[in-house]
Amino acid sequence: MSKGDDTRSHILRRALDLTSEVGFEGLTIGVLAKLVRMSKSGLYAHFESKEDLQRQVLEHAADHFVDVVVRKAIAEPRGLPRVRALYQRWLDWTTVELSGGCPFFAAAIEYDDRPGPVRDKLVAQQHEVLETVARAARIAVDAGHFHAALDAEQFAFEFWAILQAYHHFARLLQRADARSRADQAFDSLLRNAGAT
Amino acid sequence: MSKGDDTRSHILRRALDLTSEVGFEGLTIGVLAKLVRMSKSGLYAHFESKEDLQRQVLEHAADHFVDVVVRKAIAEPRGLPRVRALYQRWLDWTTVELSGGCPFFAAAIEYDDRPGPVRDKLVAQQHEVLETVARAARIAVDAGHFHAALDAEQFAFEFWAILQAYHHFARLLQRADARSRADQAFDSLLRNAGAT
Repeated sequence: MSKGDDTRSHILRRALDLTSEVGFEGLTIGVLAKLVRMSKSGLYAHFESKEDLQRQVLEHAADHFVDVVVRKAIAEPRGLPRVRALYQRWLDWTTVELSGGCPFFAAAIEYDDRPGPVRDKLVAQQHEVLETVARAARIAVDAGHFHAALDAEQFAFEFWAILQAYHHFARLLQRADARSRADQAFDSLLRNAGAT
Repeated sequence: MSKGDDTRSHILRRALDLTSEVGFEGLTIGVLAKLVRMSKSGLYAHFESKEDLQRQVLEHAADHFVDVVVRKAIAEPRGLPRVRALYQRWLDWTTVELSGGCPFFAAAIEYDDRPGPVRDKLVAQQHEVLETVARAARIAVDAGHFHAALDAEQFAFEFWAILQAYHHFARLLQRADARSRADQAFDSLLRNAGAT
């Protein structure tokens, strides 16, 4: 990496933390400049516009997600252990890994009514991550850990549902039972999938 | 209702639609004044501050939710029919009833890191609505429609999870299968609860 890439990567990491606390609309070149102690014109050397910054933060968040969730899950054995690891790493991602909440959940709410390149990027990322879950479920079917008739896309929907509800219970409601509720729901999802 | 109440109620209805599209942070006295064609000072006669406006919109949203979801569900026979009605009315609430998405999901993301009276109000409302689901599940147990060992709060968590995921699939992802995915997940939740 060149020094320029290094600086950009440092800025994006701070921008991601900021976004996880105040959302994408709160992420402006001005606020970010103060946070990283650079001039606004210095930041414009890295990001063409607010929208470009938002898009790059989404990409950075996805790279970070792949590092701390997907890669670590894929290091586990194929099938059920990998599905479980995906779930556990992901739970930590939504509540422990970042200073605020999950930036993807925030972006989903902020952009559902706003057409444009940021929304398009987000939707593409979401389809990809749901496909990652469905693929892990299909591998578990191939490994004989889930029953052969499993609908892997339905599995991904329900997997996603648990993560979203966990985020809500843990962050907004600050419920002490958030984790155990999510775990019970996940056990039930695994049972329905035929896990033994 | 006095004429003043009538005006306030009209303003709140417009404010709720605006919020469902742009979120609570986009709901300002200035933007709302333009929308309802009143002066800002005219609006300040009804709302002391932006925060007071946000709190009143949350209350108005909850009243509206009770009217179109809870009351209609309670009109159904006790037990399983009522649980089903609660689910169906609620799905419509998140995607059909308002011009944008569910204002509670938006507020949940916007306020999870912002302590204060708006967040407190929202959290109290969320506990209440989750208790409404748990109560409906307990009544279904009493009616013999669900098995006696059902954990009603766990049922409420999983019920909530399906609604959140449905909202995400239907609104952000615009997935044509959002409704059928949610329905399959709900059928599975009912089966696990022992519904016959």
